[in-house]
Amino acid sequence: MPSHEKQDFPVGDIRRFLEPGPVVLVTSRHRGRTNIMTMGWHMVLEFSPSLVGCLISSSNHSHDMIAGSRECVINVPAVRLAEKVVGIGNCSGADIDKFEAFDLTPVEADEVAAPLIEECHVNLECKLVEQRRSYDLFIFEVVKAHVVARPKYPKTIHYRGDGMFMVSGRSLNLRRKFRPDML
Amino acid sequence: MPSHEKQDFPVGDIRRFLEPGPVVLVTSRHRGRTNIMTMGWHMVLEFSPSLVGCLISSSNHSHDMIAGSRECVINVPAVRLAEKVVGIGNCSGADIDKFEAFDLTPVEADEVAAPLIEECHVNLECKLVEQRRSYDLFIFEVVKAHVVARPKYPKTIHYRGDGMFMVSGRSLNLRRKFRPDML
Repeated sequence: MPSHEKQDFPVGDIRRFLEPGPVVLVTSRHRGRTNIMTMGWHMVLEFSPSLVGCLISSSNHSHDMIAGSRECVINVPAVRLAEKVVGIGNCSGADIDKFEAFDLTPVEADEVAAPLIEECHVNLECKLVEQRRSYDLFIFEVVKAHVVARPKYPKTIHYRGDGMFMVSGRSLNLRRKFRPDML
Repeated sequence: MPSHEKQDFPVGDIRRFLEPGPVVLVTSRHRGRTNIMTMGWHMVLEFSPSLVGCLISSSNHSHDMIAGSRECVINVPAVRLAEKVVGIGNCSGADIDKFEAFDLTPVEADEVAAPLIEECHVNLECKLVEQRRSYDLFIFEVVKAHVVARPKYPKTIHYRGDGMFMVSGRSLNLRRKFRPDML
């Protein structure tokens, strides 16, 4: 069992975790209730402020909780949580308490009311900056990041649709091919 | 050398290629000139119409070409093109012809003027639906998709920042964990 102890991480560098495209778990708290949703459609939008775009369909129970509370936490799970990630995406927080049903541990955040998931290796506390109703597109600012010290690159899962995931593979260092000002 | 022969692919299913988060090459044609840019910030927004959001900074030479022509092609490169992908991202189309400089083959598209890159295993012909100036966010509709028949999952590259990439790894089939209507 890996350690869940985390360190503060610069919010301007969180692209490291989201840009490779992992499936994430989004937690929310609204009117005394918490929820977790599985999300695959997200993108980095800016370094500073640290902005992330997320597609949260209005068919999700989390949609109104996040729109109402204007906060969430984006948690990055490693592959050992893959079956829970799929389970969370295949039921509704309208019916059950997902923290309890999936035996995950809520931890108080520093800047938002939504809970962190202790078992995830990255927790990004987010405040809603803008909600585009035309595409159910939410734009969040990451205001605080918690990251485990090691492993540096836990194996993440990346969705291909149709029940198939890709598990993150080896690292490739191409620093020597970059102009210094592009790193 | 893999075959570059491609088949038409349903545009509503192109999440398979973009949702895992690969770095892509975006081609454009405007006023008789072509260009290629390396892009890491993108997300799927909708199945039908097939919508994709892309962050194209106004500091890129491609920005005005795509805003002007209202079209582009999103090309997905495999890992064997990784050094070219970095090279393309570290120079400007204002100075050079990138197809020539990186020895890539432009192929006429069916629905747009921008060229396909033959050496990429996926080519998505896109028309601009909306441009959000506040975040340099472009929303495209994929109107035509060309995909190689095999391999089904070429190794893609996923950026972590700081010159480091993740190469896509093994597949994980969790179909049995999904509700049938969620597949």
